[in-house]
Amino acid sequence: MTFTAQLQALSHSRLCVGLDPEPARLPGAWAGDAAKIFDFCAAIVDATHDLVCAFKPQIAYFAAHRAEDQLERLIDHIHAVAPGVPVILDAKRGDIGSTAEQYAREAFERYRADAVTLSPFMGFDSVEPYLAYEGKGAILLCRTSNKGGDDWQMQRLADVPGQPRLFEHLARLAETQWNRNGQLGLVVGATYPGEIARVRELAPTLPLLVPGVGAQGGDAAAVVQAAGRTAPLVVNSSRAVLYASSGADFAARARAVAEATRASLI
Amino acid sequence: MTFTAQLQALSHSRLCVGLDPEPARLPGAWAGDAAKIFDFCAAIVDATHDLVCAFKPQIAYFAAHRAEDQLERLIDHIHAVAPGVPVILDAKRGDIGSTAEQYAREAFERYRADAVTLSPFMGFDSVEPYLAYEGKGAILLCRTSNKGGDDWQMQRLADVPGQPRLFEHLARLAETQWNRNGQLGLVVGATYPGEIARVRELAPTLPLLVPGVGAQGGDAAAVVQAAGRTAPLVVNSSRAVLYASSGADFAARARAVAEATRASLI
Repeated sequence: MTFTAQLQALSHSRLCVGLDPEPARLPGAWAGDAAKIFDFCAAIVDATHDLVCAFKPQIAYFAAHRAEDQLERLIDHIHAVAPGVPVILDAKRGDIGSTAEQYAREAFERYRADAVTLSPFMGFDSVEPYLAYEGKGAILLCRTSNKGGDDWQMQRLADVPGQPRLFEHLARLAETQWNRNGQLGLVVGATYPGEIARVRELAPTLPLLVPGVGAQGGDAAAVVQAAGRTAPLVVNSSRAVLYASSGADFAARARAVAEATRASLI
Repeated sequence: MTFTAQLQALSHSRLCVGLDPEPARLPGAWAGDAAKIFDFCAAIVDATHDLVCAFKPQIAYFAAHRAEDQLERLIDHIHAVAPGVPVILDAKRGDIGSTAEQYAREAFERYRADAVTLSPFMGFDSVEPYLAYEGKGAILLCRTSNKGGDDWQMQRLADVPGQPRLFEHLARLAETQWNRNGQLGLVVGATYPGEIARVRELAPTLPLLVPGVGAQGGDAAAVVQAAGRTAPLVVNSSRAVLYASSGADFAARARAVAEATRASLI
């Protein structure tokens, strides 16, 4: 099944649990022990997989701790216990030609991810090599809500008709020209629901990945309304779920937070 | 010594050898054997280190083949045999906050690189965490010469005085606002020397990393002239050096190509 079809089949949830394991924040006796990254993340997966539409491991947290083997085991574990739930490898890769082919091989063959996030600064030919993997998702940074997100993404483009902002032009190109085989998605920050609505208007058929919603309901409702229902919405929560408790009840508390967040996103 | 000071000290060469090992292209009996990536790259380093101002391993070629351990050993090897030669980890990372901190830790602590390439799509706060590592280099994509490089980098910005192109605005910001501690550099493609000259005009103090010059002298001379002499120029060559021969003489042939390329860049 393709990445987009997987998302469509999981209509009971718009929650994606982000797996960003920081050794210092692991619960109880695991605190500080990078060798326990797999055990911790697998426990979170086991406690939440029926509540989510995706898992999103962030590769930096594994690479910084020489834990690529644990990331491989983790993704295998997700596919084993939750075979319908897609894995989005959050890597924000961005390169061209044979280097991009190597990154695609890393994401889809080595790690067996169903989708990967990409940084599109180098343009469409930095995206194309991922589309060679039929059915796999390629989710492009479009509008991020960090302060520096304004540096380029909010710039109005003088020579494009209508002088759209860069993120608007990107959303339109992704929808109308780049999404040849239904594999693209877009990352849009949760901070400004008006921008989510704008991206949805320009890209009505693309899945949207929205990072940065915590367990609070207010943001969540605004995001859901802004994103509409023409294509899948994937709202990520990482720390609020992962670190709901630092005690022995961490998995049960993670489930409770995931359940509340899932409910806020319906 | 800082990255920039290392480059300044190596004024006998502007050649950077890119280490992009493709198992299928390894020489002789090593062909197809990903376990020989270290041996191959180490032989290239041993044969060329007196001719270069930097080595640039591209992490995708290691990650696709589960060869992170070989990349660690390779960078240790470079530091051992060529202690003055900086290692640029070509990773084009681009993320913010604690994720960027993890990537910086990966590049500078795990791999002991002297500089890392970054994709600045998320703006200045995706660059800042790397600057916390005193003396380490952060080299930003600015103007790439692939076809998709035009998609955003060449766009003129409607609301910036003078309506510069995005890559021009980036070069100016990097030079005048972002380079607080002398750690930044810029990636500029070799295809259009006029654009290298323009970046140099806007960023006279930043090291420039120019990928994509082969063993041919023509391009090289134009690049050197365009880049001027106000700050270091680092011109990368990967395949022309690495795969100069597929036989037992691969290291000697690599040295010959590196020597010719170095000479063309003086």
